[in-house]
Amino acid sequence: MDTVHFTAETTSADGVVERDFTIGEITGALWSPASGPQRAPLVLLGHGGGNHRKSPAMVGRAQRLVTGAGFHAACIDAPGHGGRPRTAYDEQEIAAMQRAMAAGEPVGEIVVRYNAHLAERALPEWQATLDALQGLPEIGVDGPVGYFGLNMGTAIGVPFVAADARITAAVFGLHWPDALAESARRITVPIEYMLQWDDEHIPRAAGLALFDAFASKEKTLHANAGTHKELPRFEADKAVHFFARHLGRALAAQA
Amino acid sequence: MDTVHFTAETTSADGVVERDFTIGEITGALWSPASGPQRAPLVLLGHGGGNHRKSPAMVGRAQRLVTGAGFHAACIDAPGHGGRPRTAYDEQEIAAMQRAMAAGEPVGEIVVRYNAHLAERALPEWQATLDALQGLPEIGVDGPVGYFGLNMGTAIGVPFVAADARITAAVFGLHWPDALAESARRITVPIEYMLQWDDEHIPRAAGLALFDAFASKEKTLHANAGTHKELPRFEADKAVHFFARHLGRALAAQA
Repeated sequence: MDTVHFTAETTSADGVVERDFTIGEITGALWSPASGPQRAPLVLLGHGGGNHRKSPAMVGRAQRLVTGAGFHAACIDAPGHGGRPRTAYDEQEIAAMQRAMAAGEPVGEIVVRYNAHLAERALPEWQATLDALQGLPEIGVDGPVGYFGLNMGTAIGVPFVAADARITAAVFGLHWPDALAESARRITVPIEYMLQWDDEHIPRAAGLALFDAFASKEKTLHANAGTHKELPRFEADKAVHFFARHLGRALAAQA
Repeated sequence: MDTVHFTAETTSADGVVERDFTIGEITGALWSPASGPQRAPLVLLGHGGGNHRKSPAMVGRAQRLVTGAGFHAACIDAPGHGGRPRTAYDEQEIAAMQRAMAAGEPVGEIVVRYNAHLAERALPEWQATLDALQGLPEIGVDGPVGYFGLNMGTAIGVPFVAADARITAAVFGLHWPDALAESARRITVPIEYMLQWDDEHIPRAAGLALFDAFASKEKTLHANAGTHKELPRFEADKAVHFFARHLGRALAAQA
């Protein structure tokens, strides 16, 4: 088993320690409370397509998870993302997406197909990442683990959460049911699902169908008015509350 | 204008002052922080059918609003509820509902019709209540006001919020669109809407249609797995966060 190799460490003004790491070929970042190596639950973050482990959305969610509830948060670069090598197939699918977007044509079919391919490559990487992170004393093998990923982070996360029983709560959203409904029907842990009511890419019925597919006894849909990219920022706070409820942490006071 | 006449006062162990009041013929309760008569935003609570101003759900929500964010919370008995006199029409509709329930028949049509009737009687009472409560120094005429009501509390609240510009944020849920969609289309303030994904009384498409009808630029649907009565208790906390965001209060830390 590959172990976590830390390559850089910074501490922000709000008391969040950010450590870059590698696990074999995998590149990632781990955010933790500055108060020291006390054991705390871990939330895994899956980034969106074309993004990377330290994109603003990932850093923002990680900071909220650490400062809001004292969690550890970790994100790894998806295959072909964050400077990792792209295959010829990656280049071909990315070009197809860019052509469709430039022409104002629907991108759903390409995104669904390409994200399903990336999810297959990402699954063993996420499992190796979780194996290695659980080897750290401040995380441990028996601590609670959550997963939070939207867009491509959902395409990769749904099969991952369906396959890995260590993850006991998950936040997903903003994807199509086509390649994911079958995995969703095998997920029984509590989930929160984010959907944009006026999504110009994902038809409303398609988003509702994926939410409907989860077998979880506790599942909550958060549907917000607005287009695909207008997901309100307060949903990141709600996700912190969701993980605090399910992974067992108290919440800090909020201004 | 009728003014608030307080008839009883108790203070709970968690520092919530509960005062019963009358405003003319209207009977109500006001919950406030025990820390004294400092000005704070007001959240109006609409109770469900067959219930009253001090039913457990109302007391629970009021306590969360007061202890979680320092709000005032007020609830009045709906017409024909909480010991208030019933008309012959009230008796007739209640009997029709009870017959349908006992026979296992759908109650939607009766609930929609009877709640729409009660909403007409309740509207001037809610407006008089808000007039009078704004006369209290700890509330004031220019402080923020929210409305929170599910089931019959939505049937009464949607026309009320559509008619009264003093209310700047509202939480609704668990109703049919038939008698409410027209009022909802005139509501533009931020709303949160609660829907039960497996509601045995309200068809899923009907609940989604009412959420869809609100003209609010910021609106969020919270749809939870479960039957009509299985609305998770954590939604009351989310409502406190919603009002804290929109009526301008900080949140206390949560265990």
